Amino acid sequence: MRVYGDYASGNCYKVKLVAALLDIKLDWIHVDILKGETHSAEFLSKNPTAKIPVLELNDGRCLSESNAIVNFLARDSELLPRDAFDYAQIQQWQFFEQYSHEPFIAVARYIAKYLGLPKEREAEYLSKQEGGHKALQIMEQQLQLTPYLVGSRVTTADICLYGYTHVAEEGGFELGKYQAITGWIDRIQSTPNYVGMG
Amino acid sequence: MRVYGDYASGNCYKVKLVAALLDIKLDWIHVDILKGETHSAEFLSKNPTAKIPVLELNDGRCLSESNAIVNFLARDSELLPRDAFDYAQIQQWQFFEQYSHEPFIAVARYIAKYLGLPKEREAEYLSKQEGGHKALQIMEQQLQLTPYLVGSRVTTADICLYGYTHVAEEGGFELGKYQAITGWIDRIQSTPNYVGMG
Repeated sequence: MRVYGDYASGNCYKVKLVAALLDIKLDWIHVDILKGETHSAEFLSKNPTAKIPVLELNDGRCLSESNAIVNFLARDSELLPRDAFDYAQIQQWQFFEQYSHEPFIAVARYIAKYLGLPKEREAEYLSKQEGGHKALQIMEQQLQLTPYLVGSRVTTADICLYGYTHVAEEGGFELGKYQAITGWIDRIQSTPNYVGMG
Repeated sequence: MRVYGDYASGNCYKVKLVAALLDIKLDWIHVDILKGETHSAEFLSKNPTAKIPVLELNDGRCLSESNAIVNFLARDSELLPRDAFDYAQIQQWQFFEQYSHEPFIAVARYIAKYLGLPKEREAEYLSKQEGGHKALQIMEQQLQLTPYLVGSRVTTADICLYGYTHVAEEGGFELGKYQAITGWIDRIQSTPNYVGMG
């Protein structure tokens, strides 16, 4: 299977991490969003939303949305429990990530790290701080109760939330005061087969 | 099972619709977001994101995020195919909905319908139009190929995208030019056990 993406993107890194943990071989094709490569006719035929990552199966079928790709790759593995309520909670955290976490933390990081925090986007960058901290507080609250987001074992919920959380400081979100989150980051980094970003 | 929510919210209506299609009885407890009821200590103990809907099981466990609730209620039903790639595509559409559809179409509708399009939010309302039409175009493209978003039968992907799409005109998005979408809306409305919003 092929992945179209960029290792430095947290959404792409989720796919790299789940594949490493499960020892799944993927061929990576680098796509540069800053050069507009996601807007080529060829790329749009794989994903009309013009977003990375995209997973291409051997038969040519394509799947987009990082969290959907992660769950697909982890199907039938220990990273995706079979219990219906556990799986529902994993999805709950993944939808939370896309609606209440990524639009703040990943976007602030993008403006700061990729664009160099230009003056004309400073107000937008600052406007992301409150929502980002709110998302981190919600994670902190859960991780004070359970070692992972859904119970006592690592699941795809952790992989998907870890993607941008562990680099949140690049978006201006200091993690020092979130002790349960930093403990969780340490636990994920000591998971067998763990690989870093980039 | 109980649901905390408001029928006029598209996110809550998704839950009402899937329960009707599957003949699942739910007890509804009305929560008024405009009165701040999602910020009470009791509500926050059920969902720290302060968002509706929340599903409460008979044993007291709670689940939030509308799309996660819909998939949980539809597990083992014909609305959620067992094929792994079909399920991955359903999730793809649901993540698309939360990231690329709801933040434009539902928010524009909220500003216009609930808040009465006040002058201080007019710029924000107008800024939502382009993204909303982009999301509709992506749906239109798929629905020109297949009668439902994932193949030839209604799935939870359709329920979740239908929630705000069928009332998109309340957010200023005229649907007349999207013929595949309007045909799909008609098909969903003729599904056995269909119930409307509100």
